[in-house]
Formats: sequence, C-alpha cells, structure tokens
Amino acid sequence: MGLEVGSERVIARCRELAALSEVAGETTRTFLSEPMREVHARVGAWMATAEMRVSIDAVGNLRGVWGDEGLPRLVIASHLDTVPNAGAFDGVLGVMLGIAVVERLEGVRLGFAVEVIGFSEEEGIRFRRPFLGSMAVVGTLEEAELGLVDAGGVTVERAIRRFGLDPGRMGEARLARGVFGYLEFHIEQGPVLESMGRALGVVSALVGQTRLEMTFTGQANHAGTTPMELRRDAMAAAAEWMVGVEAGARGCAGLVATVGRVEISPGAGNVIPGRVVASLDVRHEVDEIRREWVGEMVRGAEHAGKRRGVGVGSRVLLEQGAVALDREMTERLRAATGPDVPVMTSGAGHDAMIVAPHVASAMLFLRSPGGISHHPDEAVLEGDVAEALEVGVRFVMGFEAGE
Amino acid sequence: MGLEVGSERVIARCRELAALSEVAGETTRTFLSEPMREVHARVGAWMATAEMRVSIDAVGNLRGVWGDEGLPRLVIASHLDTVPNAGAFDGVLGVMLGIAVVERLEGVRLGFAVEVIGFSEEEGIRFRRPFLGSMAVVGTLEEAELGLVDAGGVTVERAIRRFGLDPGRMGEARLARGVFGYLEFHIEQGPVLESMGRALGVVSALVGQTRLEMTFTGQANHAGTTPMELRRDAMAAAAEWMVGVEAGARGCAGLVATVGRVEISPGAGNVIPGRVVASLDVRHEVDEIRREWVGEMVRGAEHAGKRRGVGVGSRVLLEQGAVALDREMTERLRAATGPDVPVMTSGAGHDAMIVAPHVASAMLFLRSPGGISHHPDEAVLEGDVAEALEVGVRFVMGFEAGE
Repeated sequence: MGLEVGSERVIARCRELAALSEVAGETTRTFLSEPMREVHARVGAWMATAEMRVSIDAVGNLRGVWGDEGLPRLVIASHLDTVPNAGAFDGVLGVMLGIAVVERLEGVRLGFAVEVIGFSEEEGIRFRRPFLGSMAVVGTLEEAELGLVDAGGVTVERAIRRFGLDPGRMGEARLARGVFGYLEFHIEQGPVLESMGRALGVVSALVGQTRLEMTFTGQANHAGTTPMELRRDAMAAAAEWMVGVEAGARGCAGLVATVGRVEISPGAGNVIPGRVVASLDVRHEVDEIRREWVGEMVRGAEHAGKRRGVGVGSRVLLEQGAVALDREMTERLRAATGPDVPVMTSGAGHDAMIVAPHVASAMLFLRSPGGISHHPDEAVLEGDVAEALEVGVRFVMGFEAGE
Repeated sequence: MGLEVGSERVIARCRELAALSEVAGETTRTFLSEPMREVHARVGAWMATAEMRVSIDAVGNLRGVWGDEGLPRLVIASHLDTVPNAGAFDGVLGVMLGIAVVERLEGVRLGFAVEVIGFSEEEGIRFRRPFLGSMAVVGTLEEAELGLVDAGGVTVERAIRRFGLDPGRMGEARLARGVFGYLEFHIEQGPVLESMGRALGVVSALVGQTRLEMTFTGQANHAGTTPMELRRDAMAAAAEWMVGVEAGARGCAGLVATVGRVEISPGAGNVIPGRVVASLDVRHEVDEIRREWVGEMVRGAEHAGKRRGVGVGSRVLLEQGAVALDREMTERLRAATGPDVPVMTSGAGHDAMIVAPHVASAMLFLRSPGGISHHPDEAVLEGDVAEALEVGVRFVMGFEAGE
C-alpha cells in the first residue's frame, strides 16, 4: 500500500467517525454517549481487519492488540471522545494513525506486540473531569471519579453500566505488564508548526498550568453622579491588571497567559462595576517560572486594586505541574522524524501526560492549518498525515532493529 | 409648625410610600402599577389637607394646585415611580418637599399659585423609556410613546386605560399657560456633596450623555497552544482601551466615563477571547468637550485593536445634549440657599431636563449619605431635609417679595 493511500484512508476514517454524533449536523461525542457504540463497531472492525484482537475495557476504551499475547508491548493511543461541535481530528487522528501503522506492519514479524487504544474520555465534557480513559489504563482512576455526576444526574459508574460494561472489572483495564513504551500522535491545536512551515513536531514536555479565579471588589455606583476620583471601579482595576498580564506574558519566553472569562456586576451600562470575577490561565514548561510569574501577577492585581480602593482576592482552581516526556523515547521519535524536526512543548494537556509517569512516552504533533481546533474547521494536510504515518512505522521498526 | 416637625413628616411620608410596592418586602413601583393607586390616594389626601385642588392627568401624574385658578403659577415637581428594589427618596422626596412647602404657606396669600406634581414615570423601567410623565406635561409625549410595549405586551395607552384614565385627554395634561417657573428637589444620588461636607447644592445644568457600544473582534483560540505573539485577543485590546478610558476621563475636568457592561465570548477560562462587547457611558456638561473626547476614545480603541489584529467597531446608542437650567431661576435658588452653596452639574437625568426647554427651571440637590441611591439603603439626613424645606419656602416667598 502506497503512502498516499494510507494517509487518504486515515483522513477518510476520521471524517467518517465525525458523522457519529449526539447532535445531528455536528460532531459532539462525549464519554460513552450513544454514538460511541457505532464508533466502537467501525473502529473495532478496522482493527480486526488489521489482525488485531479487539476488546472494550471497563471504562469504555477500545483496545486492539497486534502480536502475541506474551510479547513485550508498545502502545499507540489517543482518544475517541470529542468536545461539543468538534472537528474530525482531535484525538481520533491519533487512533487512526495507530491502526494505520499496524496495517503497514502486515506480514512483518516483530519481537513485540503493538496495542492501539482509543480512549473513551479525554476532553472532560460530560463529567467535567478529563482523562478518565487514560487514568483507568494507568490505574489512577479512583472511586471519586466513578461517583462524578453529569448534567443529567448520571454517575460515571452508572454511565458505564448503561453502556453495557462492568465497572467492577476496572482493574483489568490496566496496561499489561510488558508495556515498554507509549506513542501518541495528535494535532498540534495551535499555530506554531504552521508558522514555522513544518509538518511535524516532537513534543518534549507538556506544560504545567495554573488556573486562578481573581475577584475585584469595588463599589457599584451611578455612572453619572460619581466623579472619577470618588469611584471604586472594579472593572478599571481588572483592566489594568489584564494589561499587565498580557505584557508580563509577552516578557516571559515560553509562557502563555489568558484571561478568558470575565464576569462583571451589576453589568449595566450606566452603573460603575462593583465586582469583577476574571479567570487567569497560565502555562509554562518550567513549574518554578510559572509559579513565580503567577505570584507577580497576583501582586500586580493587588496594586491595581489598591490604587482604586478595590479589594482583590485570588483563588487557585488548578495547579498542575509540567510533565516531561521520556528522554530516550523522544530521542527515538526525533530520529524517526528527522534530525531537524522542531522539538516543542505542548501547551495543551493530552493523554500522554497521564501515561508518562508510568510508561516511557513520546508524542508527535501534526501541523494544525490555521491553528484551528475544537471547531468544525479543524483540519490536517494529507501530506502531513502521510509523513506522520511514515514516522510511526520507522519508530516502531526502530525497536525491532534494536536501535 | 417648627422646622424639625416639617422635615420629620417629609421623611416619614417618604418611608410610608416606600411600603407601597409591586413586590412585597421591597420598594418597586413602576408606571401606573397597582400600588400607584394607593400612592395617589394618600398623597392626594395630604395635598387636599394642604388646601390644594387635586387631580390625576391622562398620563397618571398626580397634581395639586394651591391658590386661585387664574393666577400665574410656580410648579414644584418630581416623580412617584421607582426603580426595582429602590430606596425611599429618589423622586418621592421632591414631591413630599413640594407639599411641605405648600403646608408652610398656610394662611399666606400670594400673587401666584403653586402646583405640586408627582410625575407618574421618570425611571423608564416599565417601558424602557424614561420621563413619560414630564413629557406629557410639556407636550412632547408622542403617539410613538403611547405605542411602547412592556414586558407583558401591554402598551402605554392600554396601561393608562387599565388604570382608569383616558389617553384621549392627554392634551389637558399640559402645563397651564401662566406657569412661570419650575423647581425640583432631588437627592444627589452621588457622593459630591457628602465629600464636600455640604447639605445642599444648586444644579446649574444636567450633563449631556453619549452611550456607545464597542465591539472588539479578534480570534478565539486555545489558551495553551497559541503563543502570545500569535494571538488576536479581543479582551486584551478591550482592557488596554478601558485603561485609556479611565485615564482620559481623569484627565478631563468634569467628565465621567464608565465601562459598565462587558460581554466576552466564548467566555471560557481556557479559550482566548474572540469577541468582546463593552458599553461606554460618557457625560459632561459641555457637548463639544464630550463629543471630542468620545472621538478620542474610539480612536484609542482602534489603536489598541490594531496592535493585536483585533477589529474595533463602535455604535452610538444614545447621544443627548446637555441641558442648562435657567440662569435667573438658578440665581434665585442660590440666593435662597445661601451665597456659598455649591453650584454643580447633575450627572443623572431628571424631569427638570425635560421641563427646562419649556419653563424657566431650577433644581436643588440634597446630600446622599454614602452616595447611595437606587438601593434600599438610600437615605437622607433630617437636617438636610429641614434646610431644603426652608430654602423652598424662601424661594417661593422670593417671588412674592418681587426680588
């Protein structure tokens, strides 16, 4: 099978699966939702055709193993769930590339097996908790997660049972003992590779992240009768802080910071804002740098507030350390891709972040045209997919060659 | 009757009327709502006791005339409607002070009559159009206003009929020919008098106002995967603009500018804001200064947007010129108050703004403790009310003395 045929098929399969949705006319497929049954049926059939032994574990991960049961095992995985109104490639592409790599191994005999996993949950939409699928596989899914409740009052445990699975068998979802490596293909979901004119990038680390909720408390008052010097305008303080956040992030290499949510009250055009609640999302690959920078921004907010008689509070919603991927695995992936391949950090979380503390892991990014993701316009270039498939095959064969 | 007794009674009447509400436990009384009937009954009785001829005109204004029909006439007026969950004094205090002034004229014979009006509508809550009461009185209430529809689908015209009034008799609501002056007492609803340590202020003008809706259009994107230099963050542009608005307003004497409403989309903590819609409310007593300043701010927004690849649009929602009050009437009121009384502009709109183009008008502000208004905590100081009542009596008697 030629390269072109392989990448065309990978893309066609992603598009085919994108039609399996909870909402007609778009792609929305959350954890163990109805359309996931048909996804399992089709992807399972493709796996079986590629001579893989297919199963569904207790958390709903679709798993296909190519090669003998007792052999050491390399895992290639990504996720099959989507955000609401998603594109066709986030997650799904990684699973389809895993299968395509196995298809390319047809007739080959290796000293290890390859397991392709389509995780049931990565996006955290249905239960507001991401990574349920990969957590089950590394054994970190706890009772607490099984008790999470969705918008309809259904627990994770109940959702699993309704799908016809047995949450009591969660232990069997764990990776086999002989797993020696993990590879994840994923679209970049950002503009970096495109801006460099490159198809592929090797991920060396997934950034750490702090999420804060900042609260600015001033005094709501009449917009016409309150002179500027007697105001305690919460939005003015928040705006000064936001300008500082942007400038501070631009001044710190590799750091990104975002104020994405702003709630202003009372929120009328003719009333001075008495209260503003704003989110701050900060990411950097070095935890120390991220934490210091966040501290600086909190002090900046307090300063902006103080000048205006506006009180400032900050609350940590998430504090997640950076995860470095395995040096040797990443070096192998770099070698399989080409010596001048960009080595980059991932600003987004991925299943590799959950797996990496347990299994030597590597991750390959594919260029995202326009940097667009989590949107129906999400795309990949066929040539990039062909290159990624070729890299995957070389990466797998590299272990056989004993490199 | 001593001064103290007069002011105590004025305050007690305001508090009594505050209990007449559409919503139990708070003060909410919109245009011709049910509790307005009882307000008319009680206030009408107080007017009658003060020897006033009481009537309700076609727009629901309560009117009491003291003195013979054929005499020239001085009007003292304010409004009887309230905002939702209001205080006891906004509007109502002006009507109660008008009646108290007349009570103080007991036994006096003047060469003119005094008409006290309690306007039925000033706040613009029910039909989202303020000043219906005073517009009817000066003859500027049009058919268009009668066709306005409230949240329940009821027109102004229908509301009038339901209240038992005849909209066909709107012409009779107009002021009598002999009206030579208009006085309005009102709480300041701002902190200026309190910050000066003064009880009363004479209003020389009501500021003009521009309301804009600003739209910042960037590109929503992933907060983790989009480097700072590749972002088109609508909120960052808006924040820079807001900081400029605040600094620009502080730099322009007498101008106030407020960004009170901010809508950010998509509005998730981990998504770069693609679009921000923000309100801008600008007020100044000189129209030219206000208009130039607004132009500067729009250019500032465009500049902040351009630096980030964010498009900026602005839409004028309201453009209302400043209204100067009558120089002679204001001078009389200043004389009645005391030569060192603060002369100030009103940053809020009041019925005097509607009446002033038609009748020589003056306006007296009473200190608002804490600058608080449109809130149950809205208050007045009894000594301030006593002083205002005294000023009102001197103001009225001044015309008789031929000053």
